[in-house]
Amino acid sequence: MLEKHVIKKLGSIVGRQHVLTSPEDLICYSYDGTFAESRPDVVVSPATTEEVSRVMQMAYQEEIAVVPRGMGSGLAAASVPFSGGIVLSLTRMNRILEIDEENMTASIEAGVITAYLQEVVEAKGLFYPPDPASRRHSTLGGNVACNAGGPRCLKYGVTGDYVLGLTVVLADGRVLKTGGKAIKKVTSYSLPQLFVGSEGPLGVITEVLLKLIPKPQYVRTAMAVYDDLDDASRTVNAILLAGVTPASMELMDDTTINTIEEYLHLGLPTEAAAILIIEADGADEQMVEREIETIAVVCQEEGATQVRVAQTEAEREDLWRGRRSVGPSLAQRRPNKLGEDISVPRSRVPEALRRIKAIGRKYNLPIVVFGHAGDGNLHPNILFDKRDEEEWGRVEQAVGEIFAMAVELGGTLSGEHGVGTLKLPYLEMALGPVAVDVMRSIKQAFDPKGILNPGKKVGSG
Amino acid sequence: MLEKHVIKKLGSIVGRQHVLTSPEDLICYSYDGTFAESRPDVVVSPATTEEVSRVMQMAYQEEIAVVPRGMGSGLAAASVPFSGGIVLSLTRMNRILEIDEENMTASIEAGVITAYLQEVVEAKGLFYPPDPASRRHSTLGGNVACNAGGPRCLKYGVTGDYVLGLTVVLADGRVLKTGGKAIKKVTSYSLPQLFVGSEGPLGVITEVLLKLIPKPQYVRTAMAVYDDLDDASRTVNAILLAGVTPASMELMDDTTINTIEEYLHLGLPTEAAAILIIEADGADEQMVEREIETIAVVCQEEGATQVRVAQTEAEREDLWRGRRSVGPSLAQRRPNKLGEDISVPRSRVPEALRRIKAIGRKYNLPIVVFGHAGDGNLHPNILFDKRDEEEWGRVEQAVGEIFAMAVELGGTLSGEHGVGTLKLPYLEMALGPVAVDVMRSIKQAFDPKGILNPGKKVGSG
Repeated sequence: MLEKHVIKKLGSIVGRQHVLTSPEDLICYSYDGTFAESRPDVVVSPATTEEVSRVMQMAYQEEIAVVPRGMGSGLAAASVPFSGGIVLSLTRMNRILEIDEENMTASIEAGVITAYLQEVVEAKGLFYPPDPASRRHSTLGGNVACNAGGPRCLKYGVTGDYVLGLTVVLADGRVLKTGGKAIKKVTSYSLPQLFVGSEGPLGVITEVLLKLIPKPQYVRTAMAVYDDLDDASRTVNAILLAGVTPASMELMDDTTINTIEEYLHLGLPTEAAAILIIEADGADEQMVEREIETIAVVCQEEGATQVRVAQTEAEREDLWRGRRSVGPSLAQRRPNKLGEDISVPRSRVPEALRRIKAIGRKYNLPIVVFGHAGDGNLHPNILFDKRDEEEWGRVEQAVGEIFAMAVELGGTLSGEHGVGTLKLPYLEMALGPVAVDVMRSIKQAFDPKGILNPGKKVGSG
Repeated sequence: MLEKHVIKKLGSIVGRQHVLTSPEDLICYSYDGTFAESRPDVVVSPATTEEVSRVMQMAYQEEIAVVPRGMGSGLAAASVPFSGGIVLSLTRMNRILEIDEENMTASIEAGVITAYLQEVVEAKGLFYPPDPASRRHSTLGGNVACNAGGPRCLKYGVTGDYVLGLTVVLADGRVLKTGGKAIKKVTSYSLPQLFVGSEGPLGVITEVLLKLIPKPQYVRTAMAVYDDLDDASRTVNAILLAGVTPASMELMDDTTINTIEEYLHLGLPTEAAAILIIEADGADEQMVEREIETIAVVCQEEGATQVRVAQTEAEREDLWRGRRSVGPSLAQRRPNKLGEDISVPRSRVPEALRRIKAIGRKYNLPIVVFGHAGDGNLHPNILFDKRDEEEWGRVEQAVGEIFAMAVELGGTLSGEHGVGTLKLPYLEMALGPVAVDVMRSIKQAFDPKGILNPGKKVGSG
């Protein structure tokens, strides 16, 4: 429990109505997109970088843990306040500060919802590509802190590729402004990139300067159906080697297809071993047309039994509706799901898929696999019932084997969800002891008292 | 002077023939691409990461300054050993370790020459885009340490955009392996990016894992001639807003044109106020053709008096020959040149050009301007005679004003050359005190004894 003068001081900084302490309020800030849960002592919602700075100054002086939080859609328990203390909610900082059409940049507060920014810039003919599944409710500050990905990241890159500058409040309350609109800059260390994917322990991101690009005017989407998962996964690299970079190449395995179909009745091919959804886009209609034709040819060459190119926007929407509903569909199947997020070199995707399937058989667990096959980022989801302790034990073993396999194939634990708390036990296996030491010494340099999102990303050292 | 047992120990690590101590040898390692100069006590050329690690272990124990060095082509005195000590030359580590055609990656030792890697991968249909002017003699390790750019970086991004992983020897000799072939990875902090552009004070880069892309098969190049510098600089943004991203958009002002023409007699339009060299490339011939046509139209709309599209490879080569010979041509004009490297938001290029010209008039100094206008990275070069103290005083004042102007326009001191030693006096003006403090605390975390490239990039704190 925090002392009364702390609560009073927080109220004087952000306004009393923006300091929550009742159990009913606190419970709303005790979870994220995982099944982890822990209550904070207080939730504080500042409106400005200056207020965040004053909160951090006080927390630093009083040595109170602070967990920054966007919309709590994270998938690694990085914003669950296991040490209690202050949850610093950034959702009131939700203003778009500037859209600079000439330099193609957007300056925003950290609490802006990703999809909202996308709508606003698309209305101006501009484009912010990263499209995490959570984009309708996640914040851009959270996206930066997790280096969020999404289907479009194959062609367009991840969140970090669009970060030109950041305003960050450091653990002791100092305000760091780093980066800027100039595209090339080598005066500083890459400080903005150090916060990208850092998951909170180095500083509180309050403002973001994002790069935008011209909105692609044309888009074509195809679905390729396979009798053999191997053929589908080989297709991915074959398309890239043919010189075409689709915006997205999404893979769904048989269980994923069947689960979606049960839930949505979209007419998906439930007999198939796998499908790929592949999208080409660009500024030039003929070019996009040629790309989707090449894609269709390569799919057939690699063994697709059927390739369907959406002829209308409604057909295209149907293809994506299936892919987007994977999460909710799976939730219908079993009481719990553990959605993992391994990333492997593209050429190892076929082997990774085979081995995930074998691990599922070994532990007698349904593991569905879907994901961004084009960049080697796969989401094996294990379905289970957490109340069954024996089953949960098998889940934990299976996850450990999946992570070890990803590392063995030259990949890593996470392509876009992060480490948070859930993957800490595997951190040193993935990165090696020197990298973990280096990360901890950076953490120590930024936050010597260890108050910022304690224990996340790099553990407690 | 180093003690004898140190020299002996170095010989036992790398072999006696790879330890240089004679004055004639040391002088070769006392400079870079600037006019700064300072001799080391010893030059050591290790052949492996393991040897680098053992050299660093000893240097750390003995608290001897170590300056990592590639080919010494840097333009900010970052590899000049002002504190004496050890120059650690990486040029013997020049092996290409692997080219993975399937994943499109190259694994190389830090001393590989940039142009050599480019030739090797292009023979396989792959492409490593960054093309600093020094690429025929600079090393990839140095390119990473400086985040080198070049004309092609407009479309393709800078060196850092191609770094997937690094092997770095830390100040105390520990070997950090970070990154990997998986494209998306959020397990670690962005450690590879922290070393990109760090200029040596955080660690010795010994191996680099680079991303490659398919080689663009078609290329067209145009030259647009202008009576008015403003028209040329406005063209740059107009082309990008028209939805075309050329591979390069290089600007040369009147003085640059005339200097090249005097030197090479290429038939350049010496009456012009400016020319742009614009190159489109890609996998699709018709698309590249359409892009160069759009480019030509936009150039004319923005006031070009003449637009010439190279019809043969020889004509294209002529256009680039002019651009590439800017450096040597300028060297003919006056005894010294100071080549600066400011970077501004693209929309501010016209104003930056006007103000550079005004600063030249104010201090009665010839300032020629050329550079990568497409990404706002301009190279104002001041021509002078360093023996004339009064003139040198004016040069220093002019440089200070150019930097202040770049920062005022939302830009920065350096787009691709770095800070090294020469720009240290302007660091805090450009980045602010908090960012400089943060950089120094990172340096302190990585190198508590301050032995690695002392005083560079962040000063001595």
